[in-house]
Amino acid sequence: MEFQDCFPIWSKLSEAQRGRVLDSLVFRRLKKGAVVHNGGLDCTGLLLVKSGQLRAYILSDEGREITIYRLFDRDICLFSASCILRSAQFDITIEAEKDTGLWVIPAEVYQSVMEESAPAANYTNEIMAARFSEVMWLMEQVMWKSMDKRVAAFLLEEASIEGTARLSITHEAIANHLGTHREVVTRMLRYFQGEGMVELSRGTVKLLDEKKLAALRDA
Amino acid sequence: MEFQDCFPIWSKLSEAQRGRVLDSLVFRRLKKGAVVHNGGLDCTGLLLVKSGQLRAYILSDEGREITIYRLFDRDICLFSASCILRSAQFDITIEAEKDTGLWVIPAEVYQSVMEESAPAANYTNEIMAARFSEVMWLMEQVMWKSMDKRVAAFLLEEASIEGTARLSITHEAIANHLGTHREVVTRMLRYFQGEGMVELSRGTVKLLDEKKLAALRDA
Repeated sequence: MEFQDCFPIWSKLSEAQRGRVLDSLVFRRLKKGAVVHNGGLDCTGLLLVKSGQLRAYILSDEGREITIYRLFDRDICLFSASCILRSAQFDITIEAEKDTGLWVIPAEVYQSVMEESAPAANYTNEIMAARFSEVMWLMEQVMWKSMDKRVAAFLLEEASIEGTARLSITHEAIANHLGTHREVVTRMLRYFQGEGMVELSRGTVKLLDEKKLAALRDA
Repeated sequence: MEFQDCFPIWSKLSEAQRGRVLDSLVFRRLKKGAVVHNGGLDCTGLLLVKSGQLRAYILSDEGREITIYRLFDRDICLFSASCILRSAQFDITIEAEKDTGLWVIPAEVYQSVMEESAPAANYTNEIMAARFSEVMWLMEQVMWKSMDKRVAAFLLEEASIEGTARLSITHEAIANHLGTHREVVTRMLRYFQGEGMVELSRGTVKLLDEKKLAALRDA
């Protein structure tokens, strides 16, 4: 799979623009856990995931985390290049959730293409609108949903991403996705276990009754 | 003040694009409290505020509200035209907080301009990035800040917008801005009153000690 096949507006760029992108393109391999973009400190560039999984999250002053969105194969991360958007005033951290291979288009190269190409600028709009939708969804969850529903939704999402009902994940990691404390997650999971929805063991959550979890999530 | 003076990319549009925009432009006057855009039901178009004040908010199934952002003179509302962004999947309601005059550019006209004009598409990017920043700020508030700090921040913001320390606002309205219940706001305001920071009377909150409120907000 080549860069050209993964970059949706490739056919709409001019020869000169394609040359500029290809000449500056860098392919990087990240180990699980590596931080590829660290808030306002970096202007990493546009990231295009070839394979793997990234997580974008924000951090509180006290070190608490909440996952804002996740990126999978062929997804594009725009906010790692937020320096090219003057109005983007927020700090996001992006880390590899799995071993990941990705292309980096340097921020200034993408900016120069976007400034002269309506298709590139409109494509950027679509990416941002998609991320905006994810953040608005998250806002609704955080504002109106109780933590039991959010934990149930997260477990089902993880099972779907991983393709297995046996999740290798700590209570701490779940808390960092959801922006809460480990103790809250532990209490919730024990309640789920009591209800026969999950089975807990060290570093593992096994989903026993996905229907019941889905019913809780959608209640 | 004419439309041309308020629309920042006017000088970057072609004659044909300008003609299309002017021919389709509608000026509307809204009374305070009027809803100009109602979630996914509408595709109102791009709104450019000439004078007045708008509030964008989301609603829970139970009818609770939280203000996402506010718009003032010369501000542009993009998500009232979210139908032109395929990836924008969320429902925002927009209402006039004061009597407001605004121009509406029909969604399909703006879309046609944006598709052919890189400056228009990049301008749209900047607006969206600015709104994104506001939502991320709000997310941080909701996730990491206690309600006393958020009420203090809201009162100071209102005083700054209104240019007065005597705010004509109900506890219910404050709760709807912050996404909480009226009782929570009432309890908080009474606590502030006990601390000498505000004075409460029917439909009015008077700020007595803005320094102390700011210290609470920033603590």
